[in-house]
Amino acid sequence: MSYTRRREALRVQLRQSELDALLVTDSLNVRYLTGFTGSNSALLVHAEGDECSVFATDGRYDTQSQRQVPDLRRVIDRSVRSRLVKDATENRIGRLGFESHVVTVDGHAALAKVTAAVQLVATSRPVEALRLIKDDAEVAVLRAACAAADTALAGLLAEGGLRPGRTEREVGRDLEARMVAAGAAGRSFETIVATGANSAVPHHRPTDAVLCRGDLLKMDFGALVDGYHSDMTRTVVLGQPAQWQREIYELVAAAQAAGRAALRAGAQVRDVDAAARDIIAQAGHGGDFVHGLGHGVGLQIHEAPALSQCGVGTLAAGMAVTVEPGVYLAGRGGVRIEDTLVVSGGEPELLTLTTKDLVVVPC
Amino acid sequence: MSYTRRREALRVQLRQSELDALLVTDSLNVRYLTGFTGSNSALLVHAEGDECSVFATDGRYDTQSQRQVPDLRRVIDRSVRSRLVKDATENRIGRLGFESHVVTVDGHAALAKVTAAVQLVATSRPVEALRLIKDDAEVAVLRAACAAADTALAGLLAEGGLRPGRTEREVGRDLEARMVAAGAAGRSFETIVATGANSAVPHHRPTDAVLCRGDLLKMDFGALVDGYHSDMTRTVVLGQPAQWQREIYELVAAAQAAGRAALRAGAQVRDVDAAARDIIAQAGHGGDFVHGLGHGVGLQIHEAPALSQCGVGTLAAGMAVTVEPGVYLAGRGGVRIEDTLVVSGGEPELLTLTTKDLVVVPC
Repeated sequence: MSYTRRREALRVQLRQSELDALLVTDSLNVRYLTGFTGSNSALLVHAEGDECSVFATDGRYDTQSQRQVPDLRRVIDRSVRSRLVKDATENRIGRLGFESHVVTVDGHAALAKVTAAVQLVATSRPVEALRLIKDDAEVAVLRAACAAADTALAGLLAEGGLRPGRTEREVGRDLEARMVAAGAAGRSFETIVATGANSAVPHHRPTDAVLCRGDLLKMDFGALVDGYHSDMTRTVVLGQPAQWQREIYELVAAAQAAGRAALRAGAQVRDVDAAARDIIAQAGHGGDFVHGLGHGVGLQIHEAPALSQCGVGTLAAGMAVTVEPGVYLAGRGGVRIEDTLVVSGGEPELLTLTTKDLVVVPC
Repeated sequence: MSYTRRREALRVQLRQSELDALLVTDSLNVRYLTGFTGSNSALLVHAEGDECSVFATDGRYDTQSQRQVPDLRRVIDRSVRSRLVKDATENRIGRLGFESHVVTVDGHAALAKVTAAVQLVATSRPVEALRLIKDDAEVAVLRAACAAADTALAGLLAEGGLRPGRTEREVGRDLEARMVAAGAAGRSFETIVATGANSAVPHHRPTDAVLCRGDLLKMDFGALVDGYHSDMTRTVVLGQPAQWQREIYELVAAAQAAGRAALRAGAQVRDVDAAARDIIAQAGHGGDFVHGLGHGVGLQIHEAPALSQCGVGTLAAGMAVTVEPGVYLAGRGGVRIEDTLVVSGGEPELLTLTTKDLVVVPC
């Protein structure tokens, strides 16, 4: 079972850091390590094994946690963290790691007050280090989330959902409803629908602006499936494209293809960014590509690694990332093309399958 | 303007705590104090006045922050917090408060590394203390959010949306779509629709369970308007109610009325809980009311004050809270009735206006 394997992988790190146990308090990290989806939980992963590990939640989640976490000792207590630190004291844990990027200054003071017998040791995102590499179960869910977004956009296009006269907001809601109909629990982030000059704003929120013939229409959206986030951007043109629209579309498409081609285990993240960015810069639009090339996706819509000019690190097989260059011409319009992919030793697996050829919406 | 007034109110607290300034890093608190709605921001509120205060965000939000925060000095920097601490150093700030319930242990270490010249002082939720009392602008938005939920439920009932054969999930999506059509930006939390025996689960997630004649149907939902959350629960019966259904409905309705009657500036929060709880306990159902009576609502769906048996504190005019007793009979069904209200010196203002008489859905 994957949760058992993930906890076992975490133990390797604990032993390397000479920790007796780790107190996991980030709810996504608890979910990753146990499958529990409730809103109040903590987990003590013991270096020696699952038989010494403990899961805590409150009374509202007694039944749910029994079902979702059948393989660990469970305690029911409103103060999940303090309870596990007490438990650690009773079980003579000496060095207890805690997630210092999650626990607040007040939270740390409260834990330190529970006991003087346990030494609280700051750790550097040990669970996130595991989450960087998606296992088969995770890739399968990401594939399903990306498929829901593909299905939604295909339906929207096929059924004339992008006609002049509709508003950005209407298109956004339509996409979201279609993702839910395609099996998503909901959207994975606030849908971006930006038409005409609005498409030049990288993170435009949908307004009552009306789609018009001749507009570039940028849609950045994703589906949430079993807690995992898909992320895709497509830019289409309503009616026959003008020359400048076609030019920046082809430029961004070429940059995106170069980014995907550079996406490979062993590559430096900044080199992947550069592969796409150089093409845009050489065309004289370097200043119009105002953000990083991409980011990791998984239980969060934005997670490590960051593919950017100042990013540090190396890609590894199993990382799920976006590749999303853009060129934005203020007052005129912009193009972004974004896929979600899984890194491998060879060509990455493309999860968002909608075409990247310029779609001309007849109108 | 209300943001200016809120910052001025915060200054009173800063002076009492002998702080030269407060570094606000919670994004809802920044929004409360400035109106900024982006995802990366920090605010330094100087004790001397707005002319010494500074707002920080990153390049993505340059245009947006110019519009939303026209009245403060703005700096654009990706590292919003460090930048403001540097700024504080240059401006010879001695004692700088920080939100110790928000800043993580790692975050604090990073800020301390920026400078030794500034003393970082933990504070006890000073902005949340202000947010407890809603001003007129906030009450107006909460009223609109509650109205969107009322409109959604009225439409659902009027148009036969609660017919046997539909699933919980369908009803949930229908309610959510209707709230959006009524002007909401979205739902304010995951909608609860629980039919038949599922209604006995306090926080049931909608499933494909089908509505049946004779079911108690519990709907707990809310609308999001301008960042503010409404919260309402209504329980209806599909077809003629059985005697036990009518009895627990009337019991919960009486308890809810008693809770509302006790809701008044100056009341202890635990006394308000007790006013409702005693009625349920006297009827022999004390053990079936397994949660607190209510909670504050505002920029968060759950915020202070908590109306519960172990709650501490006194109500004040302008607090927006829910009153939501419930009786849950495992395996049979449950009833919860919940309103959002604003506390005053006299009778509270009721924001959720849907009837609390038992609605019998003809079928």
